[in-house]
Amino acid sequence: MTKIDEKLELKLAELVRQTHEAGIPVMVLFEGVTASGKSRLSNELLLALDAKYTHFYATKTPSEEDLRMPFLFPYWKNLPKKGDLTLFFRSWYANLIDYKYHNLKPDIFKDHHKLLSEIKGFEQMLLNDGYRIIKFNVEVKEEKRQEHIQQTKENPLTRWKAQEYENAIPTKIYTEELKHLIKETKDIAPWHTINYTERGQAVNEMYELLIDELEQALKDKKKKEENKKIDGKFSDDFKTDLFEDTEDEMSKSDYKDLLPELQQRMRELQYALYERKIPLILVYEGMDAAGKGGNIKRVRESLDPTGYEVNAISAPTETELSYHYLWRFATQIPRTGHIEIFDRSWYGRVLVERVEGFASTEEWQRAYDEINDFEKALTLEGAIVIKFFLVLDKDEQLKRFEERQDTLEKQWKITDEDWRNREKWDVYLEASKDMIEKTSTDEAPWIIVPANNKKAARIKALRTIIERCEERLWGVKRY
Amino acid sequence: MTKIDEKLELKLAELVRQTHEAGIPVMVLFEGVTASGKSRLSNELLLALDAKYTHFYATKTPSEEDLRMPFLFPYWKNLPKKGDLTLFFRSWYANLIDYKYHNLKPDIFKDHHKLLSEIKGFEQMLLNDGYRIIKFNVEVKEEKRQEHIQQTKENPLTRWKAQEYENAIPTKIYTEELKHLIKETKDIAPWHTINYTERGQAVNEMYELLIDELEQALKDKKKKEENKKIDGKFSDDFKTDLFEDTEDEMSKSDYKDLLPELQQRMRELQYALYERKIPLILVYEGMDAAGKGGNIKRVRESLDPTGYEVNAISAPTETELSYHYLWRFATQIPRTGHIEIFDRSWYGRVLVERVEGFASTEEWQRAYDEINDFEKALTLEGAIVIKFFLVLDKDEQLKRFEERQDTLEKQWKITDEDWRNREKWDVYLEASKDMIEKTSTDEAPWIIVPANNKKAARIKALRTIIERCEERLWGVKRY
Repeated sequence: MTKIDEKLELKLAELVRQTHEAGIPVMVLFEGVTASGKSRLSNELLLALDAKYTHFYATKTPSEEDLRMPFLFPYWKNLPKKGDLTLFFRSWYANLIDYKYHNLKPDIFKDHHKLLSEIKGFEQMLLNDGYRIIKFNVEVKEEKRQEHIQQTKENPLTRWKAQEYENAIPTKIYTEELKHLIKETKDIAPWHTINYTERGQAVNEMYELLIDELEQALKDKKKKEENKKIDGKFSDDFKTDLFEDTEDEMSKSDYKDLLPELQQRMRELQYALYERKIPLILVYEGMDAAGKGGNIKRVRESLDPTGYEVNAISAPTETELSYHYLWRFATQIPRTGHIEIFDRSWYGRVLVERVEGFASTEEWQRAYDEINDFEKALTLEGAIVIKFFLVLDKDEQLKRFEERQDTLEKQWKITDEDWRNREKWDVYLEASKDMIEKTSTDEAPWIIVPANNKKAARIKALRTIIERCEERLWGVKRY
Repeated sequence: MTKIDEKLELKLAELVRQTHEAGIPVMVLFEGVTASGKSRLSNELLLALDAKYTHFYATKTPSEEDLRMPFLFPYWKNLPKKGDLTLFFRSWYANLIDYKYHNLKPDIFKDHHKLLSEIKGFEQMLLNDGYRIIKFNVEVKEEKRQEHIQQTKENPLTRWKAQEYENAIPTKIYTEELKHLIKETKDIAPWHTINYTERGQAVNEMYELLIDELEQALKDKKKKEENKKIDGKFSDDFKTDLFEDTEDEMSKSDYKDLLPELQQRMRELQYALYERKIPLILVYEGMDAAGKGGNIKRVRESLDPTGYEVNAISAPTETELSYHYLWRFATQIPRTGHIEIFDRSWYGRVLVERVEGFASTEEWQRAYDEINDFEKALTLEGAIVIKFFLVLDKDEQLKRFEERQDTLEKQWKITDEDWRNREKWDVYLEASKDMIEKTSTDEAPWIIVPANNKKAARIKALRTIIERCEERLWGVKRY
């Protein structure tokens, strides 16, 4: 019988201290049929590492509550932050197999393998960001497995646990599905099969594989930092007519008639969405002082507050910065039937972060695809996603800045930063144009809203939301 | 018909900007029967405030999942951080009434009014820490209420909502219960009754009450800061015999025989606790290098990793510092049937924070009572709480420090801070003695563990845990 090699254990612990200090997030996945040794193997790893930065998450068959959130939500919620290591006992793979086997959300996933594309996008996005994903498939001799089940059954204190084994997905089905998934995903992040029949050997093999992976991770990190470039890649003579249309007409009396009618309809639609369990996600972007806040206020004014939330995005906190940039948004996605309004959003990555050099060239450039994948997953799972870009012209912005400056109750709204951003009008324009061109998709198109006239902009937004919701609910357009 | 006073709205918005900047956390509660106008009134407040620091939480009748967590858990999870304001649409009061009316967790709460003492402790603790709690009881003329329900019923899009009204707790029962609760708690944080029959009047009244409260909050904050004192209050010639017993005997061969037997029992008990849905909370405190980590390792070594977690406590992060000091622990409380191990804990408040002056005199002095309340709530709701204090003598500590210094793989374990703490041996001793004397309760007594001999300390901890669990499970002691 092979003994566990203490030297390997110490070496691994030392390496994980180094990845911790280097700020590399690590995800270690354990898949395998019931009673194959996943829990014993993963506990061995858990014991070897410092609990200060090591976490453990066990995937369960989704509850009713879980089914109200997107498929990948539990993994966003339990994503390790930079420098942390999380063990996933059963992962998004087992989750996909659960969805398929139990035929969960059948209305949305006629073909559950659609979820595979979500998984691929998720892993790729994390890898791009420096996450290390290491996947173990734990196998064991059938004889050994039956022995373990028998022991569990015979002990009166653990007997109920054996019952759980019996309720699990039949091993044959799980094994076949996993085999297929491994084949489909082994080129993104590697899979390693470990045979647990001989415990000491299995543990040592796991340690060795992890040591290889983490040594490589440290090298990759160093290389990446050496090659890091920060460049917003802006043109010298940028021109676009995309934002030329800033004027829409709306008389005061038309506004007064239309607003209450549309708001009443919004409230009715909120209840209809709730009943049909459709989540609605509204994204607001646009120039400073374009009237995002006032526009959002008109949308929410008549809503039931128990069913919507506004997420006003400021600069990220220290905690938020220690995760993938999409983390603070992905964990705020509404439950089915709820409405989430983002006052600024994940698009900050390709706007302010590009302009100010907070994101490297590579980071903001790949963000368009990442964001498209992110939104695609949302719409695939049933959400309505509507993105507004409010445009006003440079003179109108100046007028509004000065008005804020001169009005006591509005002074808090204007800061030096706003003036500094105004000086960068053209580069923001270019960043906005690129964003709109690269992220207007069939599922989640951008709506450009002329905003020199605030009233017209509000009516346009309300009408758009109502139209999109009615279309989804009943297949008809009213406006 | 009274109109909403825009000046009041602006004044309130300005005040909340001030409380935000002053770092005052505010909780606004809305209670009232269904269709009384709570949602319309609270949405009005929500619209008046900046979404950047305003949040909304709606209490629902607890789900199965909710019932696996302590009664106050949702409120810990949704506690505003310093400077934020959270609206609670139905609060812990409605939650208590739900528990009682639906007879939830009847095994634990034969008398649901036990929960009232939890509520009182919770509010008092938050108030002490500078939280402002403002409680509204929304009433409405019955005629108006019926009118609103009728309208909701008649609209085909909102009809299902009317159904919800009918499933709610009968208004008579809710009203009577709330009346009693208001009487019991009005002296802690004030209750204000607002009649919604006349909308404009109700909104203005709400604004005025909030303005008064927040102006007072700003004054209180200032006064508190002026009176703040930092003093650990240590004696010049401190002596205690509480920690004299540092030696326990344990031969290598006894240890080798006992350890696997006890660990096997731990695993069985883990499953038994899981089946009976009893949460187990282990707290480890003690001198530096007393062997907490190694002791914890022996406890968890044979456990199923899907059912336990280790929380190794470091210095609080910026985010953690922006909440009540118990927040980062209260949100880590295990679900029923799970085990949570704290390697250092909330006792940092009366140990390192007292010694280093991170907590004011008033803060660490009142913490004993707060901690006792906190633990009492945990045990009241069924948790087993076991607290170990590992003691070694000063010579043994020196020996271990030096060994760490001299062993390559252990060097990371010893820092300058450890040496600095060692210089404060006596004040830590006094802080520890006070802690043990003031927080050893019947429900959660301290177990002092002689730790000069690591093996003996491990066996003692394991035996204690097993004994306490067996006693709870079957009413018998084995050791």
